[in-house]
Amino acid sequence: MLLPQPDHQPNRLSQQIQFILEIDRLKQILRQTLLTDGSRRENSAEHSWHLAIMAMVLAEYAPTGTDIPQALKMLLLHDLVEIDAGDTFCYDLAAHLNKADREQQAAERIFGLLPPNLSHEFRQLWDEFEARKSKTAQFAAALDRLQPMLHNQQTQGGTWKQHGISRDQVMQRVAPIQTGAPDLWPYVQQVIEDCIAAGYLALDQPDKAEEII
Amino acid sequence: MLLPQPDHQPNRLSQQIQFILEIDRLKQILRQTLLTDGSRRENSAEHSWHLAIMAMVLAEYAPTGTDIPQALKMLLLHDLVEIDAGDTFCYDLAAHLNKADREQQAAERIFGLLPPNLSHEFRQLWDEFEARKSKTAQFAAALDRLQPMLHNQQTQGGTWKQHGISRDQVMQRVAPIQTGAPDLWPYVQQVIEDCIAAGYLALDQPDKAEEII
Repeated sequence: MLLPQPDHQPNRLSQQIQFILEIDRLKQILRQTLLTDGSRRENSAEHSWHLAIMAMVLAEYAPTGTDIPQALKMLLLHDLVEIDAGDTFCYDLAAHLNKADREQQAAERIFGLLPPNLSHEFRQLWDEFEARKSKTAQFAAALDRLQPMLHNQQTQGGTWKQHGISRDQVMQRVAPIQTGAPDLWPYVQQVIEDCIAAGYLALDQPDKAEEII
Repeated sequence: MLLPQPDHQPNRLSQQIQFILEIDRLKQILRQTLLTDGSRRENSAEHSWHLAIMAMVLAEYAPTGTDIPQALKMLLLHDLVEIDAGDTFCYDLAAHLNKADREQQAAERIFGLLPPNLSHEFRQLWDEFEARKSKTAQFAAALDRLQPMLHNQQTQGGTWKQHGISRDQVMQRVAPIQTGAPDLWPYVQQVIEDCIAAGYLALDQPDKAEEII
């Protein structure tokens, strides 16, 4: 016969600790982006930390209606699904085909480790980030696009050069900054022009250039 | 003749970006703590990320009067001084003698990169964390003591074994949890007893044991 648990607290704390231990694995998920000194690839945990501080530093450029404390939480959580789904390189179109499915399953499992109220809260934050409809999610997404651009500039074209990425591709990638942090858009355009002038970013992909000729 | 700058915004953004680029270096500051799978040492950026999420997950154990959004910000910033001052191993008493001075100088330089209002805000958060007087700072400090204990448990005594750390030393190290998150204290005591029973943590330091005999 199953007896009702006299005190659910120990079980609740145990779920919270299990989640805290599980997310340690995000420190081992490597992104394509290099650190600013080019010494190694960045992992998704330290990337999330960097974005959360960026939200604090650049809060004044967020459009009216952005909830900065929520943006911080969103940015801290936004990559957790990569523990199961891996980091999908943003210019890898094939890998993007099933990215949404893989990440949905990961969200079910990882946020499902938590007690129901926290599981619900974290999942809602992640869903909001993914949907990119709220001002807060759009601002968070803008920072997620800004940071790798800065790292590529610092590493003389780092990932862009390694994978033959062209200006058009980068422009498409950073476009959400125009919506999420429009006051930063002129700066973003300037960085891209500077990177082209410095030879860090190609105007066109090699095959595209051929088409034009 | 120096002309007044017609628009200070570009200079302000440039300071903000410089700070964002500078703090990337925290990803290269290694702590003594190992990742939970023991594969490598943790860096201070990913550690700060982990603590900020812990503040979200364990918020309900914070004493009344704790400001969780402020605790998140505090935890994100608390280790930035290590960019200049390095990570001081918590059981290295000699290195602790000039730790405060080294960290004060680091705070001056690093937070000084920001425009004045942000520099002031970030410095205040760091000072509050260091002073350990507010409920928020005490809760943040409690998490900073809890996380390495969990990692040492997961790595079968990891750093404790490596440096011959005894129960008394760990008890002194985790004592701030009793103040900052008293509801977690029974759990902390249990983990320490479990670690002793499993042979992950020694009851006494070898030299202490001799004194007792």
